[in-house]
Amino acid sequence: MASPKFLIFNFTLGTVVLAYSGGLDTSCILVWLKEEGYDVITYLANIGQVEDFDAAKKKAESLGAKKVFIEDLRAEFVEEFIWPSVQASAIYEDRYLLGTSVARPCIARRQIQIARQEGAQYVSHGATGKGNDQIRFELTCYALYPEIIAPWRIPEFYNRFVGRKDLMEYAEKHGIPVPVTPKAPWSMDANLMHISYESGILENPKSHAPADLYLMTKNPEDAPNSPDVLEIEFKKGVPIKVTHVKEGKSKDTPLDIFSYLNEMGGRHGVGRIDIVENRFIGMKSRGIYETPGGTILYHAHLDIETFTMDREVRRIKQGLGVKFAEMLYNGFWYSPECEFVRHCIDKSQESVEGKVQLSVFKGQVYILGRESPKSLYNEELVSMDVQGDYDPCDASGFIKINAVRFVEAVSCKQYM
Amino acid sequence: MASPKFLIFNFTLGTVVLAYSGGLDTSCILVWLKEEGYDVITYLANIGQVEDFDAAKKKAESLGAKKVFIEDLRAEFVEEFIWPSVQASAIYEDRYLLGTSVARPCIARRQIQIARQEGAQYVSHGATGKGNDQIRFELTCYALYPEIIAPWRIPEFYNRFVGRKDLMEYAEKHGIPVPVTPKAPWSMDANLMHISYESGILENPKSHAPADLYLMTKNPEDAPNSPDVLEIEFKKGVPIKVTHVKEGKSKDTPLDIFSYLNEMGGRHGVGRIDIVENRFIGMKSRGIYETPGGTILYHAHLDIETFTMDREVRRIKQGLGVKFAEMLYNGFWYSPECEFVRHCIDKSQESVEGKVQLSVFKGQVYILGRESPKSLYNEELVSMDVQGDYDPCDASGFIKINAVRFVEAVSCKQYM
Amino acid sequence: MASPKFLIFNFTLGTVVLAYSGGLDTSCILVWLKEEGYDVITYLANIGQVEDFDAAKKKAESLGAKKVFIEDLRAEFVEEFIWPSVQASAIYEDRYLLGTSVARPCIARRQIQIARQEGAQYVSHGATGKGNDQIRFELTCYALYPEIIAPWRIPEFYNRFVGRKDLMEYAEKHGIPVPVTPKAPWSMDANLMHISYESGILENPKSHAPADLYLMTKNPEDAPNSPDVLEIEFKKGVPIKVTHVKEGKSKDTPLDIFSYLNEMGGRHGVGRIDIVENRFIGMKSRGIYETPGGTILYHAHLDIETFTMDREVRRIKQGLGVKFAEMLYNGFWYSPECEFVRHCIDKSQESVEGKVQLSVFKGQVYILGRESPKSLYNEELVSMDVQGDYDPCDASGFIKINAVRFVEAVSCKQYM
Amino acid sequence: MASPKFLIFNFTLGTVVLAYSGGLDTSCILVWLKEEGYDVITYLANIGQVEDFDAAKKKAESLGAKKVFIEDLRAEFVEEFIWPSVQASAIYEDRYLLGTSVARPCIARRQIQIARQEGAQYVSHGATGKGNDQIRFELTCYALYPEIIAPWRIPEFYNRFVGRKDLMEYAEKHGIPVPVTPKAPWSMDANLMHISYESGILENPKSHAPADLYLMTKNPEDAPNSPDVLEIEFKKGVPIKVTHVKEGKSKDTPLDIFSYLNEMGGRHGVGRIDIVENRFIGMKSRGIYETPGGTILYHAHLDIETFTMDREVRRIKQGLGVKFAEMLYNGFWYSPECEFVRHCIDKSQESVEGKVQLSVFKGQVYILGRESPKSLYNEELVSMDVQGDYDPCDASGFIKINAVRFVEAVSCKQYM
Repeated sequence: MASPKFLIFNFTLGTVVLAYSGGLDTSCILVWLKEEGYDVITYLANIGQVEDFDAAKKKAESLGAKKVFIEDLRAEFVEEFIWPSVQASAIYEDRYLLGTSVARPCIARRQIQIARQEGAQYVSHGATGKGNDQIRFELTCYALYPEIIAPWRIPEFYNRFVGRKDLMEYAEKHGIPVPVTPKAPWSMDANLMHISYESGILENPKSHAPADLYLMTKNPEDAPNSPDVLEIEFKKGVPIKVTHVKEGKSKDTPLDIFSYLNEMGGRHGVGRIDIVENRFIGMKSRGIYETPGGTILYHAHLDIETFTMDREVRRIKQGLGVKFAEMLYNGFWYSPECEFVRHCIDKSQESVEGKVQLSVFKGQVYILGRESPKSLYNEELVSMDVQGDYDPCDASGFIKINAVRFVEAVSCKQYM
Repeated sequence: MASPKFLIFNFTLGTVVLAYSGGLDTSCILVWLKEEGYDVITYLANIGQVEDFDAAKKKAESLGAKKVFIEDLRAEFVEEFIWPSVQASAIYEDRYLLGTSVARPCIARRQIQIARQEGAQYVSHGATGKGNDQIRFELTCYALYPEIIAPWRIPEFYNRFVGRKDLMEYAEKHGIPVPVTPKAPWSMDANLMHISYESGILENPKSHAPADLYLMTKNPEDAPNSPDVLEIEFKKGVPIKVTHVKEGKSKDTPLDIFSYLNEMGGRHGVGRIDIVENRFIGMKSRGIYETPGGTILYHAHLDIETFTMDREVRRIKQGLGVKFAEMLYNGFWYSPECEFVRHCIDKSQESVEGKVQLSVFKGQVYILGRESPKSLYNEELVSMDVQGDYDPCDASGFIKINAVRFVEAVSCKQYM
Repeated sequence: MASPKFLIFNFTLGTVVLAYSGGLDTSCILVWLKEEGYDVITYLANIGQVEDFDAAKKKAESLGAKKVFIEDLRAEFVEEFIWPSVQASAIYEDRYLLGTSVARPCIARRQIQIARQEGAQYVSHGATGKGNDQIRFELTCYALYPEIIAPWRIPEFYNRFVGRKDLMEYAEKHGIPVPVTPKAPWSMDANLMHISYESGILENPKSHAPADLYLMTKNPEDAPNSPDVLEIEFKKGVPIKVTHVKEGKSKDTPLDIFSYLNEMGGRHGVGRIDIVENRFIGMKSRGIYETPGGTILYHAHLDIETFTMDREVRRIKQGLGVKFAEMLYNGFWYSPECEFVRHCIDKSQESVEGKVQLSVFKGQVYILGRESPKSLYNEELVSMDVQGDYDPCDASGFIKINAVRFVEAVSCKQYM
Repeated sequence: MASPKFLIFNFTLGTVVLAYSGGLDTSCILVWLKEEGYDVITYLANIGQVEDFDAAKKKAESLGAKKVFIEDLRAEFVEEFIWPSVQASAIYEDRYLLGTSVARPCIARRQIQIARQEGAQYVSHGATGKGNDQIRFELTCYALYPEIIAPWRIPEFYNRFVGRKDLMEYAEKHGIPVPVTPKAPWSMDANLMHISYESGILENPKSHAPADLYLMTKNPEDAPNSPDVLEIEFKKGVPIKVTHVKEGKSKDTPLDIFSYLNEMGGRHGVGRIDIVENRFIGMKSRGIYETPGGTILYHAHLDIETFTMDREVRRIKQGLGVKFAEMLYNGFWYSPECEFVRHCIDKSQESVEGKVQLSVFKGQVYILGRESPKSLYNEELVSMDVQGDYDPCDASGFIKINAVRFVEAVSCKQYM
C-alpha cells in the first residue's frame, strides 16, 4: 500500500471500498477516510446476521458515503463456502467449526468485485491488529489483487483512537450517531453459520460465560423436553434435503436447509462451545461459539461419510481436512494449496450419499441410523450369525504376518 | 501354532490359559479344549465389568479347569492404558473413544504373565474370526511370545458350532449350565471405560437402537434437570483430582477419579454414540458405545492441553494422536511404533497441567473455564483493550509476506 | 479360492491363466497344474525384459499349454504405470524407485483380461511366499476379481519342491528342458524400468555385490570420461521429449523417451543402489537395483516440479507421494485409496511444464538449468540487486509475528 | 526494537553486538552503527569457513569496534547442530541438506551469550531483507531474548546503500579498506558443512553454473579414477568413527570425522546440487550447494537406520524428519516444536548402530554393505532357500484380508 500518511497532502487520493458494519468503529473509519482525502464507497454484506440493513444504508449515506452497497450473499455463502467446509469436516484444533473464518473470503470476494466494478484503488476494513480477521480479509485481497487500508494498523489512526472513549468523542464531533444502548462487555460476530463471542470480560479464561450471552441457541436447560428427529439426505457430501420426521416438513435448497437446521439446532441449544484457541498471529485467545446448524451437519456428514467411503480413502481425506481447516482458519481460502485441497476433498465426496436420521435434544446431536445406495457396509459380511463370503482362517495368516516385525523388535519383550 | 487338528491323536497336548468370561461360548471352549486333550487354566480379568466373579470361578472349576485365576486389573487398566489414551486424545475415526481396544492389551498382558508363571504352552480366547479383538489379543501375544489357540478360527470348532443352537446342545450334553434368561438380541462388551453393543438386530445400520439397550448411562431424557459442575485437575496430561464444585466432594486416585467420572457421566447420560466404523479386517461394522467418564475426560483434557501447549507442538502431537488411535484400534499397543509414539506423546504432556471446570447435563459436557500455572495464554497480549507488548504494524508485514506466493500463483486470479 | 487339494478328485477343474516366464519354476508349475487337472493357458508379458519370447512360446506349447499369450505391454507400462510414478516422485523408504512394484499391476491387469476373455476360472503365478510380488499380484486380482492359485503357498506344492534339486528332478521326469547354464547365485527381475537382484549370496547384507552383477548399467569406473548433456521437456508432469543437446537427436513418444533415457543412463552407470528395505510382509530384505532412465527422470521431474509448483501445494503433494510409494510397494495400485491419490497427484501436475537440462556422468545426474512458461520463479522479486515489488520492512513484521509464540514458550529460554 | 530512526537524536544509544564477517557490508554497518550512536562489539564465528580471522580482528579494531570476539564454534557446530540433522535425515524439499540453515542458530546462540555477558542491549547482522538468514538469525534471537537491529531492513540504511557503489563510496569516505580483487559475480556462504552460491549471474535459473564456481569439491571430471572405500560406524544415529578401509586410517572425534568426510567427499566431487528452492519468505530462489561430508553421512545414516529401525517407527520418524527439515530451513531451531521433534527423533535413534561400508567416486556415494549388533534384518527369515520360522500359507490370509475392502469398493472394478 502506498503509505497513507504521505497522502495527506494530496486532494484526490482515490476511492476506497470500505467493509461497513453500521457500527461505531466503521462509521468513524468512514468519516476518517473522508477526512484523509478518500472517496468512500461502503459495502455491507448480508451473510445472515441480524441487522437493520436499511438503517445502515441511511447511516452510511448520511456520513458521506459516495455509494452504498448492501449485498445479500447468503445463498453463495452456504453453497460455495459452508458446503465445502462440511465436505471437509473442517474443524480447527478439534473443536471450532470455523464459522467466522468461512465467512471472510465470501465477504472479501464481493468487496473486491465491487472495487473493480467501481474502479476503486483501495479496499478497507475495521478489523483489529491482533486478530485473525485482518489476515483472512487481506490474504483474500492480495490473492485477488487490490491495495488495502487497514486503519487499526496505521499509527495515525490507532494512536488517535486508543479507547472507545476516543471513538465516541470523534463520533459526537463528526455527527456520527452514537449507540444509545450500552455496549455488551464482550464483542461478537454473527453470520448464518454462527455467532462468536470474545474479548471484554471473556478474556479471563477462567470466568464462566454469562448465561445471557447466547443469541442463536436456547439454553439447553430451557430447551424442549423431547427431541426433534430429523432426516438429512446427502449427495456428493453435501445436504440436499432435510426432513422433520414427525412433522413431515422438509427443505431442499441449500439456504433453506441450512436455515432450518439453525432453527432446529437453536431450539435445542445445540452447538455451544467455550474454547481457548491458537490464533495465526501466535497468541492464544478465548472464544465462545454457537453453531447450531453447522454442528448438526458436522455429525450427520461424518456419519454418512464413514458409511460410504473406503477406510483408507477416508484416512487420507481426514489428513487433508485437518490441513483445510488450518488454511481456512488462517485465511488461506484463496491460496493455491487451498484450491488444491478443496479439489481433492471434493473428489473424495463423489459417493458420499444417503440419508442420516438423528435427533437433537438438550444441546446434543444423536445419530440414530443411516442408509445409502452407495454404502460400503456389507451386512452379510459383517454378520456374527452368517459366515458370508469370509473365511475365518484368513485372519490367522493376517495376524501372523502383521506380527512378523514384532519377533525381531526385541524392545517389545521388555514389557513382561 | 502347531495346528491343533493334528494334535487330536496326542494325549498330553500341554496347558492352555483360556481367557474365560463365564459365558456360554468360553464355557464350551473350555470343555472342548479338554476334550481335545489340553489342560485348561481359566483366567478372568476384572477390568470393571459387572460380573459375578465368584460364580464364574465356581463354574470354571466345575467344568474341569485345572486352575482358576480371577485378577483385579482395574487400577493398572486406568493408569497404564486409559491414561495414555487420555494424553493422546485417542479417538478412532473422529468418534470412537476406543474403550474395548484399550482393554485388550491390558487383559492379554496378564494372561501371558500367567502362562509364563504356570508354564503353559498356549493361550486361548473366545474372540470371533471377523472381529478386531482376535487381532488385538493375538498381536499382544505375538509381541510378548506364546502360542495361540483361537477356536473360532479352527474349522473343527467353527464347523461344529455353527449357531447358538449347537453351543446349547453341546452345553447340555456336557453339563455346562445354560443361561436361563434369553440372550439379548445383540452382543455387548463391558469394562470400566465403556460398554459396546453390536451385532444381532444392530447389524441393520438403519434401525435405531432400542431405548433399553444402555446399561452404563441414563437416557438423557430421564437425566436430572440441572447440571453437575465438576473441576478436574491435570498434571502431565492426566487427571490427578476431580471435585464436585457444589458438594465439595473430591477423588484423587486414578481408579477413584475415573469411577467417579463414570458415575457423574452416567447419571447425566453422557457419552453415547452410534457409529459405523472400519474394522482392521477391512469390513465396516455398526457399533453403539457409551463411555461416560472417558467422554468427560476427553473434553477436559483437550481444553487444558490447548491452554498449556504451544500451537505447533500440539499440531504435531495431534498427528501422533491420530496414529496412536489407529494403532490402538488395530491392536498394536505392544508394537515398536506404538511404544515410540507413546513416548513422544508423553513428552508432549510435560506441561499439560491445570484445572478445568465443566458441567455435565443431559448427555453433554460443557467446558466452563480453565486455569493453569503453565498456561501459555497471555491475557494482556491478547486483550482488545490493551496494546501490550505487540505492535499492530507487524501484522502488516506478516500478512504481506504470507501473500508473496499468491502474486506468482496466477491460478488464484481466476476466481474473479 | 476353493482349495485345490480337494479338487484333485475332480477331472475337469477348469482353466488357469498362468503368468509364465519360460524359466524352470513356472515350467514346473505349468506341468504340475496340468497334473492336478487344470487346463493351462500361459501368458508372458513383454515389459521390456531381455527374453527369447519365441522360445518361451514354443516351450509352453511343448509342455502342453492349451493356449499361449505373449503380450507386448511396453507402451502401456510406460504411459499408465511409470508416468504416474514419475509424477508422484514415487520413492520407497527414501531410496527405491519401485521398478518391480510398478510392473506388477500392469502384468496382472492383462492376465485378468485374458482370463475373462478366455473364460478361465483361475489365474496363477510363480511368486514365492515370502516376497512382495505375490501380494502385488494378488491384490490386483482380488480388486479385479478372479480366483488365484499360488503354488508356492500350497503345501502339496511347496513340500514337494523344497529346493532347486526337486524342481530339476521333476523337470527331467516330465520332459521339461533344464537350463544348461548354471544359475546365478542370486535371483533377478528385469523390466524396462529396472533390474533387481536379491537372495542367494546377496542375502548377507554385509557382503559387497560382485562387480559383474549389473546388466543394465555400465560400471561407473568404465563409463565414458565425458558427460552427455540432455534436455528433457515436461508437460503435466510427464516427459514429452528428450534431446541430446550436442547431437541434436531427440525422442518424443513415451516408450522411445524412456528407452533412450535407459540407454543414456546405462552408458554412464546411473541409478545403482544397494539397500536393505522393509517388505510389506514384515521382514527386512536386501535388494540391489539399477534404474538408469528412472533415476534421470526422478531428478529432472523434481527439478521442474519445484520450479513450477507453489511451495505449499508441493508440500501436500509430497506427503501424498510418500503414501503413493507405500501403496505401490505394497501392491495397492488397484485400491480405492491409490486411485484417489493418483487423481490428486495428477491434478497437482497441471502446470508442471518446462525444460530441464542435465548431464549424466559416472553414475551421477547433474541438473544444470531449467526454464518454463509456467515458472513461479520471479527473477526480479528474488534479485539481490533489484528491490522489485518487495518492501524489506515487511520481513520485520513477518519475523516478529512468527516469534510471538516464543515469548510465551518459556521452555525455549533454558537453552542459554 | 525501539525504531533506530528516532534514536539519532540521542547520544548514548547503548551497545550492539554485530555479527561481523570482515567484508565490505558488515564493515560499513559497523561504521554506520557507530555514526548512529551505538557502541559496537564485533563477533565473528569460526564455523569452519576459510577466513583470515586475525585480519578480520584487526580490521574491526581499526574501524572502532569497542571489543572483538573471534569464536571457534566448530566442535559444537558439529555435535549440537549437524549431528541432530544427520539423525533426522534432514533434507529440504527432497534435495537440500541445509548447510546454511543449520549454522545460523549455532552462530546466533553465541552472539546472544556475548550480548548478555557484555551487557549489550542489541544484536545486529548484515543479512539482507529478502533472504532466509535474517529470519533464522532473528527467530533465534527472539527465542533467546534481545533486541535486533537489521540495517538492511531500515529505510535510512537501505535507501542510502542502494548498490555496491554506495557501499564503496561510504567505505572510502570512512577509511574502510576496500577489497582489491573484484567481487565474484555471485554471493557465497561457507562453513564446515557446505558452501552455498546464489544471486548475481546465478539468478537466471536456466544458465549453467560456471565450472570454476566450486571451492569445496573437485570437479568430478577431474576427480581420481578409482574410488576410496570408507567404513563409518554409528551409535545412536551419529557417526563415532570413520575408517579408510585400504589405508587403515581412522578418525573418531566429531570434528575430525566430519572434516575427514569433507576431505574425502571433496576429493571425489561428492555433494554438488543445483536447485530452485522455496524460501520461507514466499519466493523461489536458485541455489547451488556443495556438501561433501554431509552428503556421505546422509547416505550412510539412511542405510544403517533402515537396517536397525522397525519399519513403522521409521515411517513415523520420516514424517518428523520432513517437519524438522522445514523448521530448520525456516529458522525455527529454538522453537518449542523443534525442541519437541528433536527429542522424538533422538529417541528413535537409540538402536541406530553399526557399520556401513561405502565408496566415493566421481561425485557419487555407493553403499556397499552394512552390519550391526542391533540389526532387525533376519537372514534366515528372509532367505529364499530356507523356510525358517515362517509359514507361506499365512501370506494367503494376509492378502485376502487386505483385499476385503476391495470387494466392496466397486470403483475399482471400472478398470477392466
